[in-house]
Amino acid sequence: IKPKSMKLSEWITLNVGGKYFTTSRSTLTSKEPTSMLARMFANNEDDYLFIPSNMDSKGAYLIDRSPTYFEPILNYLRSGHLIYDSNVNPEGILQEAKFFGIDSIIPQLENLRVQKKTDVPLT
Amino acid sequence: IKPKSMKLSEWITLNVGGKYFTTSRSTLTSKEPTSMLARMFANNEDDYLFIPSNMDSKGAYLIDRSPTYFEPILNYLRSGHLIYDSNVNPEGILQEAKFFGIDSIIPQLENLRVQKKTDVPLT
Amino acid sequence: IKPKSMKLSEWITLNVGGKYFTTSRSTLTSKEPTSMLARMFANNEDDYLFIPSNMDSKGAYLIDRSPTYFEPILNYLRSGHLIYDSNVNPEGILQEAKFFGIDSIIPQLENLRVQKKTDVPLT
Amino acid sequence: IKPKSMKLSEWITLNVGGKYFTTSRSTLTSKEPTSMLARMFANNEDDYLFIPSNMDSKGAYLIDRSPTYFEPILNYLRSGHLIYDSNVNPEGILQEAKFFGIDSIIPQLENLRVQKKTDVPLT
Amino acid sequence: IKPKSMKLSEWITLNVGGKYFTTSRSTLTSKEPTSMLARMFANNEDDYLFIPSNMDSKGAYLIDRSPTYFEPILNYLRSGHLIYDSNVNPEGILQEAKFFGIDSIIPQLENLRVQKKTDVPLT
Repeated sequence: IKPKSMKLSEWITLNVGGKYFTTSRSTLTSKEPTSMLARMFANNEDDYLFIPSNMDSKGAYLIDRSPTYFEPILNYLRSGHLIYDSNVNPEGILQEAKFFGIDSIIPQLENLRVQKKTDVPLT
Repeated sequence: IKPKSMKLSEWITLNVGGKYFTTSRSTLTSKEPTSMLARMFANNEDDYLFIPSNMDSKGAYLIDRSPTYFEPILNYLRSGHLIYDSNVNPEGILQEAKFFGIDSIIPQLENLRVQKKTDVPLT
Repeated sequence: IKPKSMKLSEWITLNVGGKYFTTSRSTLTSKEPTSMLARMFANNEDDYLFIPSNMDSKGAYLIDRSPTYFEPILNYLRSGHLIYDSNVNPEGILQEAKFFGIDSIIPQLENLRVQKKTDVPLT
Repeated sequence: IKPKSMKLSEWITLNVGGKYFTTSRSTLTSKEPTSMLARMFANNEDDYLFIPSNMDSKGAYLIDRSPTYFEPILNYLRSGHLIYDSNVNPEGILQEAKFFGIDSIIPQLENLRVQKKTDVPLT
Repeated sequence: IKPKSMKLSEWITLNVGGKYFTTSRSTLTSKEPTSMLARMFANNEDDYLFIPSNMDSKGAYLIDRSPTYFEPILNYLRSGHLIYDSNVNPEGILQEAKFFGIDSIIPQLENLRVQKKTDVPLT
């Protein structure tokens, strides 16, 4: 198997709310090609829905969202698995999945919300 | 829908107690326009209540408050949802909401305090 | 009300054990003026007990203590409230309160220790 | 005993998804010499399976994976012990162990998954 | 009392696995003078067991170990108290105490391991 990090892909740094994430264009665009996130970084200009966001002084793309909850989203795009630590609130991941249009994990996250509501009042 | 990060808005970096947050002027000013935070960064000079705080050597606005508890406040202004991880103390968020004048989440946070008081003695 | 960050005060960066904290001289000196921390940064030279500690190459004052447990101490000086997350060990905050001479929170923290000792053997 | 950090080894900095890790070539290659990770950084060019990944502007090797779950993997290669904090999801470590080919800890991590499945539905 | 940070001591920055820690030579050498860590940074050249490790481009001493579990070790050398947060795995601290030769806290940490083993299967 050829690992992702070895692909001849362009490296991209995102400044999500002040925290830096380094990833490849293929990670952002391959898994869910029709998502807003994928279309922000699409190789093919015809696929663009939006112009890319501004860059900061270090050349990182600025995204005005929560870095905490973006992290599991990005890991999902990297590994194909939605995994998060026990202290992380899945409600936060759900909001980011909706914002970036990562539709494939939304049902799973909404399911968790339903389960929790039966236990304790949600924040 | 047009995502926030695509808005033609000015990017602002805050140095909150030593930690950097990057966001847009519209995030800081749109959701609660009469809050102290919004008025610190208001576009219209007539709306200013205060002169903006000092800047550090990297051009970030200095704010002498807790970064830990400012983070969910900023995420609320970004996404419209108050979300925080299970290990975060909501009492800390409440103090920041009061300081910055983000009135719309104060009742919800004070409610949590009441609920907790019935369970365990508060710190 | 006039927020702290708006005060005409001098900004100070501390390098506590390798982590940077940005705050104002007034935060460090106003709340507990007779504490060791306040006297390290006192405006009035007559109040000095000690010469200030060394500075690092970025102009931050070097303090050889734990950043994790200094953080709630600094937040207390900022907001007047002692607040910490559920995973943070209050024993660590107590040691820093004693080291820096922040006497007003010591009884509260020692009380917590007594309560805990009745439950589980302390580390 | 001669500590690892004293070995005449080459220091390597990895940029894993935006977070920096500093380690030595011997740590990456000695413990599991046939793993993909070891072969990425093998001293002997004959052992290369892949060309090393790209470098960022600071000279760090770019790896497009989760820094959170890479950390216990690297600590395992350093100390020979798989140790992680109570809030960390072992499922995430398992995915990275599989990706990097650190086979010796996979059974232990898969075992944990089985145990958990009997308790609570897995994410 | 004269605080540690006021001692006429040399400041030292350690790069432990990619994370920076700032401390003084006296903190590293006074508490446990015969430990490997103390001897790495001993003032008296006769006490050297090892030559100091390499430095990175910022002048920090490179140590190829886990930063997470080094932190409570360093705090112990600073304050004389072994304190860690509830989510931190004491098994990790034990491994670092053994590696750096901080013998005075090893029995306490091994004791914790014994206690835990009676409760739940150890990782």
